[in-house]
Amino acid sequence: MSKDFAGIANLRNIALTLRYDGTKYHGWQRQKNAVTVQETLENAISEVIGGQVSVTGCGRTDAGVHAEYYIANFRSDCTIPEERIPFALNSRLPEDIVVRQAREVPWDFHAVFNCKRKEYTYRIHNTEFRDPLFNNRVWWYPQSLDIDAMRLGAAEFIGTHDFSAVRAVGTNVKSTVRTVFSFDIFENYGIINFRVAADGFLYNMVRAMVGTLVYVGVGKIQPSEIADILASKTRSLAGPTVPPQGLYMTNADYDIEL
Amino acid sequence: MSKDFAGIANLRNIALTLRYDGTKYHGWQRQKNAVTVQETLENAISEVIGGQVSVTGCGRTDAGVHAEYYIANFRSDCTIPEERIPFALNSRLPEDIVVRQAREVPWDFHAVFNCKRKEYTYRIHNTEFRDPLFNNRVWWYPQSLDIDAMRLGAAEFIGTHDFSAVRAVGTNVKSTVRTVFSFDIFENYGIINFRVAADGFLYNMVRAMVGTLVYVGVGKIQPSEIADILASKTRSLAGPTVPPQGLYMTNADYDIEL
Repeated sequence: MSKDFAGIANLRNIALTLRYDGTKYHGWQRQKNAVTVQETLENAISEVIGGQVSVTGCGRTDAGVHAEYYIANFRSDCTIPEERIPFALNSRLPEDIVVRQAREVPWDFHAVFNCKRKEYTYRIHNTEFRDPLFNNRVWWYPQSLDIDAMRLGAAEFIGTHDFSAVRAVGTNVKSTVRTVFSFDIFENYGIINFRVAADGFLYNMVRAMVGTLVYVGVGKIQPSEIADILASKTRSLAGPTVPPQGLYMTNADYDIEL
Repeated sequence: MSKDFAGIANLRNIALTLRYDGTKYHGWQRQKNAVTVQETLENAISEVIGGQVSVTGCGRTDAGVHAEYYIANFRSDCTIPEERIPFALNSRLPEDIVVRQAREVPWDFHAVFNCKRKEYTYRIHNTEFRDPLFNNRVWWYPQSLDIDAMRLGAAEFIGTHDFSAVRAVGTNVKSTVRTVFSFDIFENYGIINFRVAADGFLYNMVRAMVGTLVYVGVGKIQPSEIADILASKTRSLAGPTVPPQGLYMTNADYDIEL
């Protein structure tokens, strides 16, 4: 029925590929009294196509968190060719949000429900002195970190587990079980990258896992203890939640090519 | 005499190695009604050692221009060991200025007069879409640039020339002759780096040379015309002055090791 309706009204479902600097935003999701990426994008789309539009984003990034790759979709009867949509939107968007691609997708495509795999990368600048040219782009952590130990610890997160021990306390969700597909740690020019992919993440889960691995890196937690911490489902046994400016959404996979 | 004076009063000459994000500053040099890097640094030093201090910087970077490597010196009777000075200053400095090293240098060392070679690097992000994560760090220029042609053009700037054609009109200086030692262009991940070293630079000279090379890159100026443009001493024949956010001081060389 929805397809017929789409056909009659010439409604299109458009998937956007975004990149944004989250420094000045209170995260993705629209909220009262705070500027968010979703609201800023919806306003730009409304200006271009005329009339209200509602955009669905692939994940709820927090205040200060960035996106190198982010998928959002919206439905509209706009007739702008897909290759022109990025230029039309970018001319209305502030410099810290950029639309890199627009693709017409099947009517039932949904940026959250159809996402099979999400990937985040957390970046720590692990050097004696803060680099002012990396402010708001990394978390600066001067203490030496044992990368081999952190890799052993990261491997403990891989698989299907209850991740209650590494999520924000007090958040409500149907299930706290997720599947982590991979968790790689690699270093480039003093920046340690923590790249983790899963079928989904609980609130603050990436930042709590990285905080736990930092505790492993300084010897406060042993890699072998992580399985017990997960089994305990107790947030206080894991490491701290690291700050938002080092976190980037870096991929989102769907059954269709975007 | 100055050496004796230094000996009597225990005065030390301290050279600082800095790195800064110039986005929020009206350049290096102290001025009325605008916050500068020099003033911010002088205030931090004064807080640490007590009493007024005057800092000499190796060059006058403009508003919005950055420094990956910048040398400044000041004279003081402070007794803080040199290895502790960076930490003492960084705890007073804002996040966008960092002192990476302090070295006691000979009494007559002067960050400007003793500088033998300065190096600047200009960075253009040459891609179809702006990258919001590079805002204030590069100049985004979407039009395709011919790197081989720009390299031929850059070679024309090397040597001892009158650089009047590529400096801000109306500035006063004793001599407009400078020696450019090298001018390299290389690309990394879509960023074109223009790295130029000279015995000194006229006001806006790097940005006007890069603007001229961008005109070469799009075919508006032929590489072989640059010698004539320099000989003409006429600013209007060269290319435009490119914006400040792509410019970094990247090196400063002295007879002594810093």
